[in-house]
Amino acid sequence: MLEKLKPVPRVSRADYARTEADLRVDLVNAQYDLRRARYPVIVLVAGDDRVGINETVQLLQHWMDARYLVTRVFVQPSEAERERPLFWRYWRALPPHGSVGLHVGSWATSLVRERLKGSLDAAAFARRLGWVRQFERELVDDGALLIKFWLHISRKELGKRLGKFTGPDDEYWQVENSDRRAYRDHAEMVALIEDMFAVTHTARAPWFAVRSAQSRARNLAVATQLRDALHERMSLRRRRPSRVPQSRGSYPDALGGVQLDERFEDYDRYRRARRHWQTELGRLTRAGRDRGRSAILVFEGWDAAGKGGAIRRLTQAMSVRDYRVIPVGAPTDEEQAHHYLWRFWRHLLPPGRVLIFDRSWYGRVLVERVEGFARPDEWERAYQEICDFEAQLTGHGIVLCKFWLHIDRREQLRRFRAREKTAYKKYKITEEDYRNREQWEAYSEAVNEMVARTDTGEAPWHLVPANDKRWARVEVLKTVCRALAA
Amino acid sequence: MLEKLKPVPRVSRADYARTEADLRVDLVNAQYDLRRARYPVIVLVAGDDRVGINETVQLLQHWMDARYLVTRVFVQPSEAERERPLFWRYWRALPPHGSVGLHVGSWATSLVRERLKGSLDAAAFARRLGWVRQFERELVDDGALLIKFWLHISRKELGKRLGKFTGPDDEYWQVENSDRRAYRDHAEMVALIEDMFAVTHTARAPWFAVRSAQSRARNLAVATQLRDALHERMSLRRRRPSRVPQSRGSYPDALGGVQLDERFEDYDRYRRARRHWQTELGRLTRAGRDRGRSAILVFEGWDAAGKGGAIRRLTQAMSVRDYRVIPVGAPTDEEQAHHYLWRFWRHLLPPGRVLIFDRSWYGRVLVERVEGFARPDEWERAYQEICDFEAQLTGHGIVLCKFWLHIDRREQLRRFRAREKTAYKKYKITEEDYRNREQWEAYSEAVNEMVARTDTGEAPWHLVPANDKRWARVEVLKTVCRALAA
Repeated sequence: MLEKLKPVPRVSRADYARTEADLRVDLVNAQYDLRRARYPVIVLVAGDDRVGINETVQLLQHWMDARYLVTRVFVQPSEAERERPLFWRYWRALPPHGSVGLHVGSWATSLVRERLKGSLDAAAFARRLGWVRQFERELVDDGALLIKFWLHISRKELGKRLGKFTGPDDEYWQVENSDRRAYRDHAEMVALIEDMFAVTHTARAPWFAVRSAQSRARNLAVATQLRDALHERMSLRRRRPSRVPQSRGSYPDALGGVQLDERFEDYDRYRRARRHWQTELGRLTRAGRDRGRSAILVFEGWDAAGKGGAIRRLTQAMSVRDYRVIPVGAPTDEEQAHHYLWRFWRHLLPPGRVLIFDRSWYGRVLVERVEGFARPDEWERAYQEICDFEAQLTGHGIVLCKFWLHIDRREQLRRFRAREKTAYKKYKITEEDYRNREQWEAYSEAVNEMVARTDTGEAPWHLVPANDKRWARVEVLKTVCRALAA
Repeated sequence: MLEKLKPVPRVSRADYARTEADLRVDLVNAQYDLRRARYPVIVLVAGDDRVGINETVQLLQHWMDARYLVTRVFVQPSEAERERPLFWRYWRALPPHGSVGLHVGSWATSLVRERLKGSLDAAAFARRLGWVRQFERELVDDGALLIKFWLHISRKELGKRLGKFTGPDDEYWQVENSDRRAYRDHAEMVALIEDMFAVTHTARAPWFAVRSAQSRARNLAVATQLRDALHERMSLRRRRPSRVPQSRGSYPDALGGVQLDERFEDYDRYRRARRHWQTELGRLTRAGRDRGRSAILVFEGWDAAGKGGAIRRLTQAMSVRDYRVIPVGAPTDEEQAHHYLWRFWRHLLPPGRVLIFDRSWYGRVLVERVEGFARPDEWERAYQEICDFEAQLTGHGIVLCKFWLHIDRREQLRRFRAREKTAYKKYKITEEDYRNREQWEAYSEAVNEMVARTDTGEAPWHLVPANDKRWARVEVLKTVCRALAA
């Protein structure tokens, strides 16, 4: 792509001034119209022209309304960022619906730069390109308008600039090592950029490559393209959902295979077993803290299946500084204004901790699917998105355990009734719980499909018989211990 | 206080069970009632009984509704936390209105522990105690319900526990070095705790010291106290604003002293001066980045005084990765649900950057005062809160420059008219701007008082004559350069 880039015709000062006024009005008005939109706009300003990127970003900051424009510059990752999966910082920085995020450098520039420096080998480079493509696809699938600029400067132009700036330290701009490297290894760099384009230049998230040496021409090219992309998107009445296969496959009845009659009849035997595994868990989490190994535990299951009790038997064995429990309920306004995975990304902890989700991202393919809160194309897409998300967690060395606590309908009714009789548990039972019971079959189907499609080697599902609470608690403790010890 | 703590009578298992049910219902119901409140609840669980703290926190997590309870455990500060003023992490963790934050250890425990270890000298300890007192007072002034528990274990009880746990590694709890230190230096530790109480045990933020060795007695004591504090607070119809002095002093006419006729008649002279200082600024910010020195620049001024233009002349000279501009408008919902300074604390950057506020925390004593958005007791209190906040910034080594861009009423009107004629500036002028003009006198009075009461040696005000934009821009550039070079 870069080789075929036509040199942009120079723009005179007068022409620039004439165009500027209109462009600025259009951009600001587009921002106002965007305020009502149910999607975010992400403008990626990347490239090999460091100086040009800087100027363009300052221009957009100047021309657009700063209140609805958030600039994020991605430099060397901080300690907190290094401690978490690679894309954590990109997820966290995503703008909410109705606003524009100006992302400088970001996932694209750093990839090429690190490969050129040699701090990434060819295989890691290829793998990350795949992640970038997948990340961008997820954003676009979710409705984001993603506009990607690559600002390119030819070797000759870069050479001229290097010559001009190597004088005394009296200019805003200093030559940096990365500029010298780009000049020296220009052909190699261009080849890497082309490799990146080959993977990440997609129909729905295309790159706009811009010859960047002349400021005015570049500024107009970027601003015009941005305005047109905003206009085009806003003129669409609404996004057409992608087609979903109508005839759905059937999935193995995983729930049917759970041995619900497992139980601890004898309290003392249960107590000894629990103490044994709790002691083991205490030892393992202390060791995990010291070695910086993290775990994420996901709890799903029928209402009243005993998630809270099972979680409590885990946390009892740990120090409060080593775990955090995240109860997942209805999303907040802020969470609603982002991709549904955003609210889970933000909770990731530094190394050495245990993060426990009481309900989780699987809500997308369970309650949201069954109750119709998500469209079919949305929850259908989610299986893959979830697998990709979990692969990033486990790829980062996080131990991931997923539990479905299984009870039968009769047991559930018994527990609802019992809760209604206990003063401090009454608040846990609402009409909605009874309504959900009516959907038992639909939920069973969703669970079976979920297990079939998201049970992976690194992130397996554990279907726990929970008609007997004692059995379930020990089973969960034991499973977590084994996963941590592996 | 600790010496006089009476041993708590033991609570039998049966008595505990009887009380538990009522307490749990009360606590959960109090949480629900609290949802509508316009203040947050902060429960500080600190103390010298590490094991007891852990049990109590787990108990509260268990008894209360996890959806409206956020637990924050303050362990060793992370890199990001070490890079910012001490209280940054405590500010960030504050719960929003209507919810309960369970803060474990936090500012109190770490202070005593660090002093005991010797990593804080006596003077630093005393200074920080003052900060804690001031921080707590600000929270309470803002309406927060702050409930502070200190869980205390006697030397004898601690000795017994140490003996019990030094066996093989088969218990949840391991003895840590801090426990051994607490045992060895028990008298010294108790003296430090008493020193802390002496400063931070205040009428509106008292400590509840609890003998902590017996679990059941301690749990009931803490939960009962918490419930009672919630009930008491919620039974108050509303907070009585503290009295504000009726006859207000008059302040020197700082604005009247600004020489508004300063100007650059000659464009070339202006251009040379601007280039000179921009080059200097570029050099200084690069040096600041390398040395990890940060600056915060605050811009206030009349509408149309040219804040945006002056800021742009600064940022032009920097790399986009080295600065961030925060436009301060109406607070978001989330910001509204916190202390008014919270939204500024959260923006603080890692070292080596320039953070620019386009309007700032001074809104409290300007627009909020004049328009009546803040009550008199609120904005009256703000002068001291602002000075304290800024002292923490400058105490952390951050360079702080505050600008008031000054124009006269005639010049303002001229600029409003001119903006209405420029297509891309039209959106900057609204009816409200004309309305604000009517309040010129009230604003002048507020500015004079603000300057008189918040102009400090480390955080001085710069009143910049801005009838001539060129003059103002060069003046701002020059002032920033001098502050950075100092």
